[in-house]
Amino acid sequence: MRFFEDIAVGQRRELGSFTFTAELIKKFAAQFDPQRFHLDEEEGRKSLFGGLAASGWHIGSVCMKLLVADGQRQAREAAARGEQVAVWGPSPGFRELRWIRPVLAGDTISFASEIEQLRSSSSRPEWGILHARNTGTNQRGEVAFSFLATAFVPRRGNTP
Amino acid sequence: MRFFEDIAVGQRRELGSFTFTAELIKKFAAQFDPQRFHLDEEEGRKSLFGGLAASGWHIGSVCMKLLVADGQRQAREAAARGEQVAVWGPSPGFRELRWIRPVLAGDTISFASEIEQLRSSSSRPEWGILHARNTGTNQRGEVAFSFLATAFVPRRGNTP
Repeated sequence: MRFFEDIAVGQRRELGSFTFTAELIKKFAAQFDPQRFHLDEEEGRKSLFGGLAASGWHIGSVCMKLLVADGQRQAREAAARGEQVAVWGPSPGFRELRWIRPVLAGDTISFASEIEQLRSSSSRPEWGILHARNTGTNQRGEVAFSFLATAFVPRRGNTP
Repeated sequence: MRFFEDIAVGQRRELGSFTFTAELIKKFAAQFDPQRFHLDEEEGRKSLFGGLAASGWHIGSVCMKLLVADGQRQAREAAARGEQVAVWGPSPGFRELRWIRPVLAGDTISFASEIEQLRSSSSRPEWGILHARNTGTNQRGEVAFSFLATAFVPRRGNTP
């Protein structure tokens, strides 16, 4: 993970891709979102989605998985270069989550994260606040999923 | 599920409670959010969370599970009364998701949904648009989780 000073607006990271198979869609839905169009192909086809569709929370959870893996990759690379690794604070939440297009069985979604805004924390001068637009784009190049995440990122000067 | 005409601002539904055990927290985290404070008690204690903490996406997914169960319960009750059951549209997304307090192993979160705003859809007159504040409150009465969901709800008059 990087320090606040090393991050600039517009920086974009490709997080990797994930194929939402029918099996994975149904497995997540059975646990957390058992609506008929997430559980059964025929019900999906009859719905506004037009096919077996992934739960929106499944899409968000997969994006989180890839965000974490990317952060861990960055931390390993920084450590390998002998650099200090920043430890980010917990996220207070996010804004504007949008399920723009259905994610249907077989769709491959490529996730990316782009820095949209950086600002100082008035209450905690040792932290900066970052807003990143995280997106998921399908195999046809259509953005299917988007949210604006907030994170507290430590400043380099204030680390012990 | 209810029709748009049957819903009023301020209506609140208790969705039920869920206890986030250490086992369930780790299981979700291993699949979708493998950060150290979601996977290991000792790492959780050393973190800002102060204990093994549930992934925010886990909390959201459990809230979804209880929202779906509540919707299915309402639909069964309406059907048992011989009433027509409304079929809601897919959610386009939500706003202002907030992880306000950590959810630690053993915490029991009670979820609720309250109607905050109702409006007509200008582009689709057969649908109304609903904004509901969904919250999760811990066993000490502290709100730990909140988001403002959007849903398309059919109007009674326009159903075939």
